Amino acid sequence: METLLLDAETVEDNAPMDPLVDAVESAFAAYERGDATMPPKSYVDLPQYDGDFRSMPAYLRAEDWDAAGVKWVNSHPHNGERHGLPTVMGTMIYSDPETAVPLSIMDGTTLTTRRTGAAAAVATDYLAVADATSLGLVGAGVQSFAQLDAITTVRPIETVVVADADAERAAAFVEDVSDRFDARVGSISEAAACDVLSTVTPVRDPIVDAVGERTHVNAIGADAPGKHELADDLLAAAKLVVDDHAQCTHSGEINVPYEAGRLTDDDIHAALGAVVTGAATGRTPEDGVTVFDSTGLAIQDVAAAHVVYERASAAGAGTAFDLLGLA
Amino acid sequence: METLLLDAETVEDNAPMDPLVDAVESAFAAYERGDATMPPKSYVDLPQYDGDFRSMPAYLRAEDWDAAGVKWVNSHPHNGERHGLPTVMGTMIYSDPETAVPLSIMDGTTLTTRRTGAAAAVATDYLAVADATSLGLVGAGVQSFAQLDAITTVRPIETVVVADADAERAAAFVEDVSDRFDARVGSISEAAACDVLSTVTPVRDPIVDAVGERTHVNAIGADAPGKHELADDLLAAAKLVVDDHAQCTHSGEINVPYEAGRLTDDDIHAALGAVVTGAATGRTPEDGVTVFDSTGLAIQDVAAAHVVYERASAAGAGTAFDLLGLA
Repeated sequence: METLLLDAETVEDNAPMDPLVDAVESAFAAYERGDATMPPKSYVDLPQYDGDFRSMPAYLRAEDWDAAGVKWVNSHPHNGERHGLPTVMGTMIYSDPETAVPLSIMDGTTLTTRRTGAAAAVATDYLAVADATSLGLVGAGVQSFAQLDAITTVRPIETVVVADADAERAAAFVEDVSDRFDARVGSISEAAACDVLSTVTPVRDPIVDAVGERTHVNAIGADAPGKHELADDLLAAAKLVVDDHAQCTHSGEINVPYEAGRLTDDDIHAALGAVVTGAATGRTPEDGVTVFDSTGLAIQDVAAAHVVYERASAAGAGTAFDLLGLA
Repeated sequence: METLLLDAETVEDNAPMDPLVDAVESAFAAYERGDATMPPKSYVDLPQYDGDFRSMPAYLRAEDWDAAGVKWVNSHPHNGERHGLPTVMGTMIYSDPETAVPLSIMDGTTLTTRRTGAAAAVATDYLAVADATSLGLVGAGVQSFAQLDAITTVRPIETVVVADADAERAAAFVEDVSDRFDARVGSISEAAACDVLSTVTPVRDPIVDAVGERTHVNAIGADAPGKHELADDLLAAAKLVVDDHAQCTHSGEINVPYEAGRLTDDDIHAALGAVVTGAATGRTPEDGVTVFDSTGLAIQDVAAAHVVYERASAAGAGTAFDLLGLA
């Protein structure tokens, strides 16, 4: 009864978007049906180090599988300049819910990147126009690659427009994907005019004022009180779907206008789980702009870990280690 | 920047009680001073599997070190008969609070056993009579060895009396320790007459009605609502110290009489942290029976993990693994 260790590269290799998007969609459905247990994230604040840890435990039962685990993840925004380390690092313990054996311990950083992309794809599938062929990206980092990878599994994306304050980074992104897409660097307005837009920046003053008439926006960047990427008017006019009401109003894209009373619960159309199960509508012919507010849920991590573990096990990947002396 | 993997045997080898008791004492002091962050345990209940998971995150700053981490631990009481597995298994992620790097992932089962013994030793040090030489043990399992190991670091124990419903198990325990102690199998009453008594059974009806006039009792076994080992009258008359008020009244030794109104906050002398820092008294000449209600805190795990990691690192023990791709 060994524990399978999966490093960052092995997680990446075993997290293809097709099954990941399916698993994350199943996770949102399970959450909506009441077949998931997800206590609130526990925060361990470390003001003396300008950072924090979060523990994110969850269990979920999908149609033909179930899964449990916890992700331990931090945010240390000054890690780069101070230590040459990433701002965010995660470690995931993935457990068999029936026996509680820790089946796998895996890099939770790559897992987070991939499952975040997968959730945007689920939202895009239900909220973007059916014939969406263009994707705008505001921000050209690691998450933008995940957004592109994921969204292309649900829409036939041909054109990609990338905006980034760092021109070199935007150009590098374009070069990287230009063999598969008609990709170009553009302004934020140009990116925002696409059929689908994903915003992945950590800004505190909105940088997107307007989007196409029927654009679907995945608002990914905001992950703390005070952060938002989209103008209040844009949000107020949009069909707004949240991953989780409590997290989004606390620290998601809508947290600033919600806190200010500029947006209220009446402005929130539904949770993504309700859209997935059909309890709430996705895009209808009457809809204009749609927005998905993504904060990231523990059920996404557990669902993604399920995919990665099953694939890695089947492929004989990873390193078996008898951590608990159960062998 | 690799993560040090420490399996059950390596944790055991690097968890000697002297430094562990010191570190756990420092953890209780830090908690009392407000130098620890410990969100409530998050429970993921699994009624369909008759079990649960708990995530236990914490940070603490002691005098000259600090430490952070999370333990992911379960309770599946039918694991033995159904799967040939332990009821409780734990996995600990031990992190550098400054950079958030996961310094170590270690077996949390052995860690739990050892840190639980260490807390009892801290309580015994402040609450038992100074010249205690006899230790009674009700229950002769793995935790009883930890109790003995730990308590001998704070009192010159010579005599050990072991009571267990399983006579063979009691005899095996005695045989195991008889080279170091004057050890014998005895009744619960005989064990309870010792200077120090540790009770480590999962019973729901009290099995200890009376103890010696100045006995200090470590009540370890109760870990869920409905469990208790000591008679209400004994608890009501004792000087009662808790590891954590919320946990003890919810699921510790005192939970049943507290819930019934038989014990109130007026019957609780103090938290162990207050005793350690001197904010509340330990044993005074006037005191008779003292009881320590131990439920187990995340700060104990983090403190114990600190000791194990530092020792294992210095000894070159464990297996380095580049989990996060930071190397």
